[in-house]
Amino acid sequence: MGAVTAPAPWKQLLLNAMESNAHLRHSSYIQLATIACNGRPSNRTVVFRGFQEDSDKIQINTDGRSRKIEELKHCPFAEICWYFTDSWEQFRINGTVDILDGSNPDPIKLQQREKSWASSSLKSRLQYLGPQPGLPNLSEEPPKDVSVDPSTGPVGAFCVLVLDPQQVDYLNLKSNQRLTFASTGSPNEEKCWTSERVNP
Amino acid sequence: MGAVTAPAPWKQLLLNAMESNAHLRHSSYIQLATIACNGRPSNRTVVFRGFQEDSDKIQINTDGRSRKIEELKHCPFAEICWYFTDSWEQFRINGTVDILDGSNPDPIKLQQREKSWASSSLKSRLQYLGPQPGLPNLSEEPPKDVSVDPSTGPVGAFCVLVLDPQQVDYLNLKSNQRLTFASTGSPNEEKCWTSERVNP
Repeated sequence: MGAVTAPAPWKQLLLNAMESNAHLRHSSYIQLATIACNGRPSNRTVVFRGFQEDSDKIQINTDGRSRKIEELKHCPFAEICWYFTDSWEQFRINGTVDILDGSNPDPIKLQQREKSWASSSLKSRLQYLGPQPGLPNLSEEPPKDVSVDPSTGPVGAFCVLVLDPQQVDYLNLKSNQRLTFASTGSPNEEKCWTSERVNP
Repeated sequence: MGAVTAPAPWKQLLLNAMESNAHLRHSSYIQLATIACNGRPSNRTVVFRGFQEDSDKIQINTDGRSRKIEELKHCPFAEICWYFTDSWEQFRINGTVDILDGSNPDPIKLQQREKSWASSSLKSRLQYLGPQPGLPNLSEEPPKDVSVDPSTGPVGAFCVLVLDPQQVDYLNLKSNQRLTFASTGSPNEEKCWTSERVNP
């Protein structure tokens, strides 16, 4: 038998919150804060795409041409704010982000990217074929019909972000309780989590 | 008659979104990203408390002992991400934040703080009398009954953040349209806004 890694102590709280808010479409929408190249904060809504395998690492699909990629290459730190509107719980998840694009030299990461592509809907795949996000929109007409062959692999613009959590702040506005979790141990080592109850 | 300042062109879009989502309690909950003192992004949910008078400046009440105050003193830039879950609209509002606490030397700002205190509910005022947010919670018992005299002014911990928008990114996920707004003109001058349609 292989070594068994203890799950992160906040992960079960998050899974519970996801379950109790699962009837809301927006319960998987999270706000990802990064640092822009001018040093100012940057913040946008993205979709939680699951944990990487059995780990506590969070996956997000994005367009490799969007500004957040540039920002994360410049400064790999990010904080997710995840507020659950039905159960009144908030998770602030701080960590470093790994960018999995088509030029990644690691074959395991290329495989993970292919897996994320395969598990995304045909409709969501189409958006990666559109014009570059954030550039001036010049066309007056709606975009022409584009299609993707469902059997082919990820297009060039498809990119997966993997956030490796290092600190988590949990707040429950119904019970008025707040917990902070911090991991010790350097990256790629097994993480060890400590937790503390703090004033809300 | 005094000079008439043209309203910011994104403000009406925001007012419309607020109106069409007003039946949802969480429609005034926004995510405020700042930069922590270690240089990493920081992100949390706060409540939109209205515009300052007839301006486009956004007001947020907060505890002066919370970490975001320290962060904003260190780096005054912030970005609000405001996602409307019913109309599928997102506003990313980037600007600088002014901190109105009890030690502010400007009498007009002290008055604005008093006004915000007076317009907040008695229940919300009580939270500023609790123990310092984020510090270890040592008590096993629920906090003792505290009360505030409704006629007295703001307590020491009460603080108002005023975000002065400089850039706004609007995304409508139903129409798949995106607009960016940028203001020219230095602070305290009259702002002049430009807008552009960009690719979503």
